[in-house]
Amino acid sequence: MSRLVMKFGGTSVANVERIRNVARHVKREVDAGRDVAVVVSAMAGKTNELVAWCKEAAPLYDQSEYDAVVASGEQVTAGLLAMALQQMGVPARSWLGWQIQIRTNDAHGSARIESIEGAGVIDGFGRGEVAVVAGFQGVHAETNRITTLGRGGSDTSAVALAAAIKADRCDIYTDVDGVYSTDPRILSEGKARRMERIAFEEMLEMASLGAKVLQVRSVEVAMVHGVPTYVRSSFDDPANPGEGTLICNEEDIVEAQVVTGIAFSRDEAQITLRHVADKPGVAAAVFMPLAEAGINVDMIVQVVSQEGMTDMTFTVVKADYDRATAIIEKVKDDIGFASMEGAKDVAKVSAIGIGMRSHAGVAARGFRALSEKGVNIRAITTSEIKFSVLIDEAYTELAVRTLHSLYGLDAA
Amino acid sequence: MSRLVMKFGGTSVANVERIRNVARHVKREVDAGRDVAVVVSAMAGKTNELVAWCKEAAPLYDQSEYDAVVASGEQVTAGLLAMALQQMGVPARSWLGWQIQIRTNDAHGSARIESIEGAGVIDGFGRGEVAVVAGFQGVHAETNRITTLGRGGSDTSAVALAAAIKADRCDIYTDVDGVYSTDPRILSEGKARRMERIAFEEMLEMASLGAKVLQVRSVEVAMVHGVPTYVRSSFDDPANPGEGTLICNEEDIVEAQVVTGIAFSRDEAQITLRHVADKPGVAAAVFMPLAEAGINVDMIVQVVSQEGMTDMTFTVVKADYDRATAIIEKVKDDIGFASMEGAKDVAKVSAIGIGMRSHAGVAARGFRALSEKGVNIRAITTSEIKFSVLIDEAYTELAVRTLHSLYGLDAA
Repeated sequence: MSRLVMKFGGTSVANVERIRNVARHVKREVDAGRDVAVVVSAMAGKTNELVAWCKEAAPLYDQSEYDAVVASGEQVTAGLLAMALQQMGVPARSWLGWQIQIRTNDAHGSARIESIEGAGVIDGFGRGEVAVVAGFQGVHAETNRITTLGRGGSDTSAVALAAAIKADRCDIYTDVDGVYSTDPRILSEGKARRMERIAFEEMLEMASLGAKVLQVRSVEVAMVHGVPTYVRSSFDDPANPGEGTLICNEEDIVEAQVVTGIAFSRDEAQITLRHVADKPGVAAAVFMPLAEAGINVDMIVQVVSQEGMTDMTFTVVKADYDRATAIIEKVKDDIGFASMEGAKDVAKVSAIGIGMRSHAGVAARGFRALSEKGVNIRAITTSEIKFSVLIDEAYTELAVRTLHSLYGLDAA
Repeated sequence: MSRLVMKFGGTSVANVERIRNVARHVKREVDAGRDVAVVVSAMAGKTNELVAWCKEAAPLYDQSEYDAVVASGEQVTAGLLAMALQQMGVPARSWLGWQIQIRTNDAHGSARIESIEGAGVIDGFGRGEVAVVAGFQGVHAETNRITTLGRGGSDTSAVALAAAIKADRCDIYTDVDGVYSTDPRILSEGKARRMERIAFEEMLEMASLGAKVLQVRSVEVAMVHGVPTYVRSSFDDPANPGEGTLICNEEDIVEAQVVTGIAFSRDEAQITLRHVADKPGVAAAVFMPLAEAGINVDMIVQVVSQEGMTDMTFTVVKADYDRATAIIEKVKDDIGFASMEGAKDVAKVSAIGIGMRSHAGVAARGFRALSEKGVNIRAITTSEIKFSVLIDEAYTELAVRTLHSLYGLDAA
């Protein structure tokens, strides 16, 4: 019997009527003879309500209490979906993180799954029972306290559960019908292309570089465990669902394209230090204090040194910009630089494709096309299967459209 | 160090501001040097919202899923109160039913507590930590599933926890400032009397007979384990709270009165069967089918038989009246009776007092006083420490006032 994990997010379970619709999707798979585990998020809006109460109760709330409060949202959805399934004649029971058990480390609020005990769920399959699993939550085995995986963590719950119970597939139901070559809203109507398949590595870059369809961590887990993962729409007719996009191994993609997708993020801010002494230890002097403050640095670019001095540019997320510049100002004497410049009106545009590994000059063609459109490139980073450019935010759409068209991604 | 359990109901924790007020009450006791466990209900209205979703998801919902959904309400309050306490500098942590563990049988939706493992809470006391316990919920040890104790179960959670951790006292904070000689709303302003002390047995009768201040089961548990239990107001100034009413052993009450309180319930319906054959097995023929349908029968009165025939009167709660009469009609031939009469416009008024044990004629004086006021008595039941009369509902206030005054309960 084939084994399937299905995952439904907050908008798909926003009220009882939608939960019933989810039950119809599940019933379809059960009727097709599959053993099914369903992972659910909290009803849309519920998590925000709970978080607001936490902030009201204690501005600097205890993360372990936060987890106890917030995990209740998924608990409610799991129970309601189990009921709705039973009502349709499909045997089902709810499973909370501590019941399964989904064991995590003790990093409350953003815990990582360490192991999942799948025996209870599999026993349930033997009784013909659908397992309805509360996503986003786990338990820290030593303290026996509830943990949460952080926002979007239900995707990770689903993929990790699929790996634990050796499911043939994990279907992530969301409010879009698959992974697109770029955000459809940024192109002319109908020009973005839904991919039938995308490689794990590509999806990982897409998610990391701004595509919001899946949480980065869930793609990592799928890749490590080789769980074929579909992205599908929960708003399709349950009797006749669309195909979605399959995230799979590179080898399973027949016609690989050089560039698969264009991602972008407006959530960037640029900081440039002028006339930094180009000597050992200076990078550490800049980046250690930021790391200690929990600030992630993304792109880092250093120009070739002239007379022992260099310019250093890096990006942080916009929300961290003010804190980052304050920290740099404080350690100015340790670093030694002439001036600091910054910009918050910047964006990062990236082209991703495993084909870049075997094709030369892919990035260079992109830089030329952008310059022909008058897009000024502030910084560049590349990896084996992607390149990213930092540009003025106002040119975001133009840059995405230019690259999308250049690499032959526009739908016919 | 003295050990205290405090319990706060739904209206006392209806929003974060009120939860903060609860935290102030708790802090006062901690500052007084006590080890404190606090039991909380769901925020007022939350349980109703959750129950409504269950009914929408599945009209005949699975009780074990219902428990998983509904128990989330207390979970949220427990986390929020722990945060609010920490914010005031009081170390605290939340405990869910399965974490403590509060073990129950598997009667989902109305489970009974079988045992409570108090070690974790007591260890927390050793670290100077307030235990914030989600009321109303437990866990069934064999299945590891969440159970709930049924409406009002948080009172029982609190008293049972007090017994388990050998607390010196259990304080039940509610929206009234104690137990009154009768419902103050039914008498002229200020005539009802707040009792300083009341015996467990009396409180048990009061709760069973319609006083809503405490859940019956919680009084039973307090009585069996001898837990001195205060009923107090959560709306008192946390810095200067009122005294409330102490429920305690009979021996601890110095000036016992003959009658302590007058309770009443309008939630009664009367059914009378005329000309029932007075032979063995007839009572079983009437009451077994009702019991099998889960209908509780309260007062049962059978008049002395004449020529082998008798009349039989009993009461059920109003909500069960239609089902009960339909069942009796169906088994009419098995029972054998001439006609069935019923009335929903009836009320039960009761006088309670341990002094009745040693004083004769207490009930008789009551019956006479009622008849002098023209109150027609439809049925009477008595026990060692109470008597109840079934009367026309319209006479409820008159009957309560008459008895309250007769037994010297009116406040000066």
